[in-house]
Amino acid sequence: MAESMHERTIRRYWEAADRRNWDIFAGFLHEQVEYTLPQTRERVRGRTAFTEFNASFPGDWRIEVQSVTADDRTAVSKITFRCDGKEETGISFFEFDAGRIRRITEYWPAPYHPPVRASGSVERI
Amino acid sequence: MAESMHERTIRRYWEAADRRNWDIFAGFLHEQVEYTLPQTRERVRGRTAFTEFNASFPGDWRIEVQSVTADDRTAVSKITFRCDGKEETGISFFEFDAGRIRRITEYWPAPYHPPVRASGSVERI
Repeated sequence: MAESMHERTIRRYWEAADRRNWDIFAGFLHEQVEYTLPQTRERVRGRTAFTEFNASFPGDWRIEVQSVTADDRTAVSKITFRCDGKEETGISFFEFDAGRIRRITEYWPAPYHPPVRASGSVERI
Repeated sequence: MAESMHERTIRRYWEAADRRNWDIFAGFLHEQVEYTLPQTRERVRGRTAFTEFNASFPGDWRIEVQSVTADDRTAVSKITFRCDGKEETGISFFEFDAGRIRRITEYWPAPYHPPVRASGSVERI
């Protein structure tokens, strides 16, 4: 399939963040964008505040997009966030309003120790 | 948009798991399905092993689908997994081969304490 409109928006959104092109980044956002981090129960509201949240994020970080899945209402991206020799995975759920990003719900899943499994079919990789 | 083929597959996959309909569940899987948990570096390979992994998962758990985003190659679901009065969020990335689920990469993001933020625009919710 050809890259969908929302997939293209999300790829350009991350490219703008990676390049610190904050005017371009802000252009993808709805004025009332809501950014939510459910794991820490944090929220940032509004285009200006959310752009500033990203622009002020400390460190010489880089973003690499691993995947984007999009339909005509929503998109989900998985990125690798690299900073100071460390790597984190970020998963972002996007909702759109007239082509602009209206809601972002983002998760940063960290490694954890596997539980004892009932199944004997689990390999370690 | 009408529900896409892959969205429908994923919603029925989770419904089958929730109802312990393991024959139906297995029918959505490619024979060589690969299930990966990057956070714990665990993997389960193959339809029989992965169905057994799910069927043997302990507890009186229930699954509620929060969202499915799908295109013609991939899908991403977000579920709430409830067991013994606890709730967890599961995020699953699916790849397909001829309509069957060929790869699943799944994340279970846990709560964590928010870091000190450079931005003053972050609310707690």
